[in-house]
Amino acid sequence: MYVETRVRVRYAETDQMGVVYYANYLVWMEVARVEYCRSRGFNYKDMEAQDGVFLAVVEARCRYHYPARFDQEVVIRTSLAEANPRLVSFAYQMQVSSRTIATGETKHVFCDREMKPTRLPQKYYPTFGISHRAAK
Amino acid sequence: MYVETRVRVRYAETDQMGVVYYANYLVWMEVARVEYCRSRGFNYKDMEAQDGVFLAVVEARCRYHYPARFDQEVVIRTSLAEANPRLVSFAYQMQVSSRTIATGETKHVFCDREMKPTRLPQKYYPTFGISHRAAK
Amino acid sequence: MYVETRVRVRYAETDQMGVVYYANYLVWMEVARVEYCRSRGFNYKDMEAQDGVFLAVVEARCRYHYPARFDQEVVIRTSLAEANPRLVSFAYQMQVSSRTIATGETKHVFCDREMKPTRLPQKYYPTFGISHRAAK
Amino acid sequence: MYVETRVRVRYAETDQMGVVYYANYLVWMEVARVEYCRSRGFNYKDMEAQDGVFLAVVEARCRYHYPARFDQEVVIRTSLAEANPRLVSFAYQMQVSSRTIATGETKHVFCDREMKPTRLPQKYYPTFGISHRAAK
Repeated sequence: MYVETRVRVRYAETDQMGVVYYANYLVWMEVARVEYCRSRGFNYKDMEAQDGVFLAVVEARCRYHYPARFDQEVVIRTSLAEANPRLVSFAYQMQVSSRTIATGETKHVFCDREMKPTRLPQKYYPTFGISHRAAK
Repeated sequence: MYVETRVRVRYAETDQMGVVYYANYLVWMEVARVEYCRSRGFNYKDMEAQDGVFLAVVEARCRYHYPARFDQEVVIRTSLAEANPRLVSFAYQMQVSSRTIATGETKHVFCDREMKPTRLPQKYYPTFGISHRAAK
Repeated sequence: MYVETRVRVRYAETDQMGVVYYANYLVWMEVARVEYCRSRGFNYKDMEAQDGVFLAVVEARCRYHYPARFDQEVVIRTSLAEANPRLVSFAYQMQVSSRTIATGETKHVFCDREMKPTRLPQKYYPTFGISHRAAK
Repeated sequence: MYVETRVRVRYAETDQMGVVYYANYLVWMEVARVEYCRSRGFNYKDMEAQDGVFLAVVEARCRYHYPARFDQEVVIRTSLAEANPRLVSFAYQMQVSSRTIATGETKHVFCDREMKPTRLPQKYYPTFGISHRAAK
């Protein structure tokens, strides 16, 4: 199961090689991640504001297959790769006109305002497909 | 009186025109502003952390005279244009090899954690050259 | 006459004050400018690629009225403030939930690949509402 | 053998979690990579301008151990992990006050202006520690 998000390449995101600067793919992954959560009925902003729970990234990886260029529409397919009450990881496939331009993964731990690891509140288990039994 | 700060143009800061993307000059102004404060014996980070006082920008302006390019060293001369306990404004001159490439100004108000306007704590008056008499 | 563009605030665009970092408003203005051109039947990318004509910014200005926050939808109303075959300026009004959060202007000159000023090709006059008579 | 580069965390690089946004570590890796090349007597800018040879990233990875915060000085230790006339990979260790905050790797292929893979010109072999014998 994946969720699709679309971003249009901004001029700001290009570099003098005439293509998208490599760090910006991680920004797109974040945009896609937020959309993934929203599509699952879960607002990331609210979890931060109401529960004081943050998703802190512990690892990010991207493989660049083909350059993205200004004004292209990039489709990002986001799926959940792993989830338990302590960590969650996402996988991303980025396409332009049906050609895969990049793939990536990010791994996150749930943490509190002091950036200490915490457990995901149970009410959010369904968002991440975590069963209450498995979470024990 | 001005304070000099140097930044080297990052690849990330260029765009497909082969020059520095225009919004990045505002990032350099921020770097220069922090250095200006530091050179006056004042740590911006501490004011935020200890006093809960923030410098919220209310206006920014930049004139672009000549493009900056990757790997060039940009010298930013920062000076105080106006200061009182409610607002402060800075002026910036940016140069590459003695040629002025851009000039800019930013205007800020002091505010608290809730982004409400506040007055600068008196201990910081000297940093901004505010006299106690004038501040009343 | 204005053209509306919408952007959703990215996490990447916030700073530790909990609001959008000030330089990012200039990125949104660029996104809005490209959309303005597209809505006038003009593709900015093509002008660069086919005609070798670029819009080089010579001045940018932004007034910040109210902070924008993560995940908010920002509506940008873009209009043409001035246009002739040598320069064009745009005005921007940025709103969140009908409240104006910022206003800005950018001024640009047309230039060639070597960043030298040039004249806008006549075929693009209609996009910018330039009459052939006035342009002489 | 590693080369050290120092960057001071910019306000622009933080996000509303109060720490450095994760994509910015890749920007620092780029800054460190350019410095690595410079320290080896090789100017990356010149290779692009004079030889039309670019380093296109094909993979990037970062592990985040501890958050970096505004105004901290980050020391980046860059070393060559692998190099031959077609590709090169770098490893990065990022520290704040001797604590490792992140580690990363990037893999690059040499390519021409059309983004097609090419071979590194022989004059640059010493920079990357490539022996002429091994390169055949």
